Amino acid sequence: MSKTIKIAVDAMGGDGSPKKIIEGINHHFKNNKNTFYQIFGDKGQIEKFITNELPRENFEIVHTEDVVKGTDSPLEGAKRGKKTSMWLAIQSVKEKKSDVVISAGNTGALLVISKLNLKMIDNIDKPALSALWPNKKNMSVVLDLGANIECSPKNLIDFSIMGSSLFNSLYPNDEAKVALLNIGSEELKGNEIIKETYQQLNKRTNNDFEFKGYIEGNQLMNGDVNVIVADGFTGNVALKTAEGTANFITSELKKAMTGNFIGKMSSLLNISNLKKFKKRLDPRLYNGAIFIGLDSPVIKSHGGTDYIGFSNSLSVCSKTVTGNLIEKITNNIN
Amino acid sequence: MSKTIKIAVDAMGGDGSPKKIIEGINHHFKNNKNTFYQIFGDKGQIEKFITNELPRENFEIVHTEDVVKGTDSPLEGAKRGKKTSMWLAIQSVKEKKSDVVISAGNTGALLVISKLNLKMIDNIDKPALSALWPNKKNMSVVLDLGANIECSPKNLIDFSIMGSSLFNSLYPNDEAKVALLNIGSEELKGNEIIKETYQQLNKRTNNDFEFKGYIEGNQLMNGDVNVIVADGFTGNVALKTAEGTANFITSELKKAMTGNFIGKMSSLLNISNLKKFKKRLDPRLYNGAIFIGLDSPVIKSHGGTDYIGFSNSLSVCSKTVTGNLIEKITNNIN
Repeated sequence: MSKTIKIAVDAMGGDGSPKKIIEGINHHFKNNKNTFYQIFGDKGQIEKFITNELPRENFEIVHTEDVVKGTDSPLEGAKRGKKTSMWLAIQSVKEKKSDVVISAGNTGALLVISKLNLKMIDNIDKPALSALWPNKKNMSVVLDLGANIECSPKNLIDFSIMGSSLFNSLYPNDEAKVALLNIGSEELKGNEIIKETYQQLNKRTNNDFEFKGYIEGNQLMNGDVNVIVADGFTGNVALKTAEGTANFITSELKKAMTGNFIGKMSSLLNISNLKKFKKRLDPRLYNGAIFIGLDSPVIKSHGGTDYIGFSNSLSVCSKTVTGNLIEKITNNIN
Repeated sequence: MSKTIKIAVDAMGGDGSPKKIIEGINHHFKNNKNTFYQIFGDKGQIEKFITNELPRENFEIVHTEDVVKGTDSPLEGAKRGKKTSMWLAIQSVKEKKSDVVISAGNTGALLVISKLNLKMIDNIDKPALSALWPNKKNMSVVLDLGANIECSPKNLIDFSIMGSSLFNSLYPNDEAKVALLNIGSEELKGNEIIKETYQQLNKRTNNDFEFKGYIEGNQLMNGDVNVIVADGFTGNVALKTAEGTANFITSELKKAMTGNFIGKMSSLLNISNLKKFKKRLDPRLYNGAIFIGLDSPVIKSHGGTDYIGFSNSLSVCSKTVTGNLIEKITNNIN
């Protein structure tokens, strides 16, 4: 039997917590019996949602009444002290009581408290926020998504290594293919930092990933590459623009498809196909950002997701541990 | 009868030229009788597609055999000399023989040759490449799309003024609402240049547009603002990512909707609604980029569009003239 994976869970972050957090745990446990959940938060509230399907020996509740609020600035969140459910969860990985930590709470506070408590991996200059993004073939890892507005070539190379290590942890059967997000036409191509990064990655002889050069925004979802590297400003704009475009198109589609009687009827007839489409694009499938570069993975679930989405983020937690993410980064960075 | 609008047309740029260019002119003329087209290119080829519907007094063909190639670098394009159809078309607005110039050819060359020949508008530091982008309410103007990788606050303020002048020329009944494209969470918000631009725009008291602050990628298509300002790198990534996402979703939708018999049948039944949807997102509707900041509008049609798309770009040409774009920018910049 494989080693138990210990996940430190901040149960109090995000909308509808701790209900969705605990229901997410229950759901995750069904397919991940080798998991131990160390759950941080209000014991009275949490216990209401624990069912018999989650055996006593697979979880522990560490009671605390302090929480970081969604409206806190990152520093306000950190200043709420060492007894918040978020801080305690991070402390758990710091003290090696857990393998990985997850929260659906305040992103900025999670980043700050993680950086205060966890060590950087040697030779990594800055941690990065990464996420999964669907493409025509499978999924891509995209980073950085906003942790670092301005990046040096060294940072972007670190991101390439961390992103491909993450990709390899999540999809051990696929090969990581890295590209730098850049802009189009030759003459306008990129800034000095991107060009310098390109040169250095091109010379690199390690085989932890294949370097595929530049990628433009309109090719991001082709699936030809699966690790997309950008500074935090560009990455954030790209990911959010993709999200906004997806919402726009699906709402226009809905309007067109249900605007009249024939539309409604034939959409009803076509419901299984439309469901298939919806499922393919279900944001819960790729819920969660992964903060990498510290000596433990820190997983951020979307605050607005439901228990299915949170359960998917717990699966990301599991995979970063079974895939030896930190070890991979440590080996590849040197 | 209103004043004739004179459009200088490079007939030799883009795929399928000059056929689609001339068919686009024929199509545009149907609803724009007050237009005179000065057409530059290979007379023998061009004449084949001119029909009787376009009266002799509404066009002139200026013969040349030299063309800028799509594969030329911008400088190579410029070095092909003053007899290319692109150069001659730009020369026509320089000499005030035409009011506006359009090409579906090499973007980089068009930018370089325009800058070589046309004067900057006083007090504008850099010209910008802008485009139209659909939103839930109507259309937005987005700029810069790649002409300027690095921008100062002054540049971004210029773009706000030029973008809103363009919006007001195209949609005279709507009010221009400007926002700066930025990233999310408070603590990570923006770089110094964006913050400084925000401060300055916030203090501005002119009433040519309403300044609405920052906008994130996921709100771009809500329609709450209609002029979106970014440096050329960010703007290019955002626009192309939106394009890639739209293609990805519509191809996933197509797969889901036609993958089996029921899907095919009900999609057939729903065909008018699907067509409505397709029409709403038809890229030909917002074909064309507008290079602004010089003393004449320079319109770039997508090289891959068809005659309908080219005709829509010709309509943009007409509107920049009837809407007094250059005059608006000149007044608003001072």
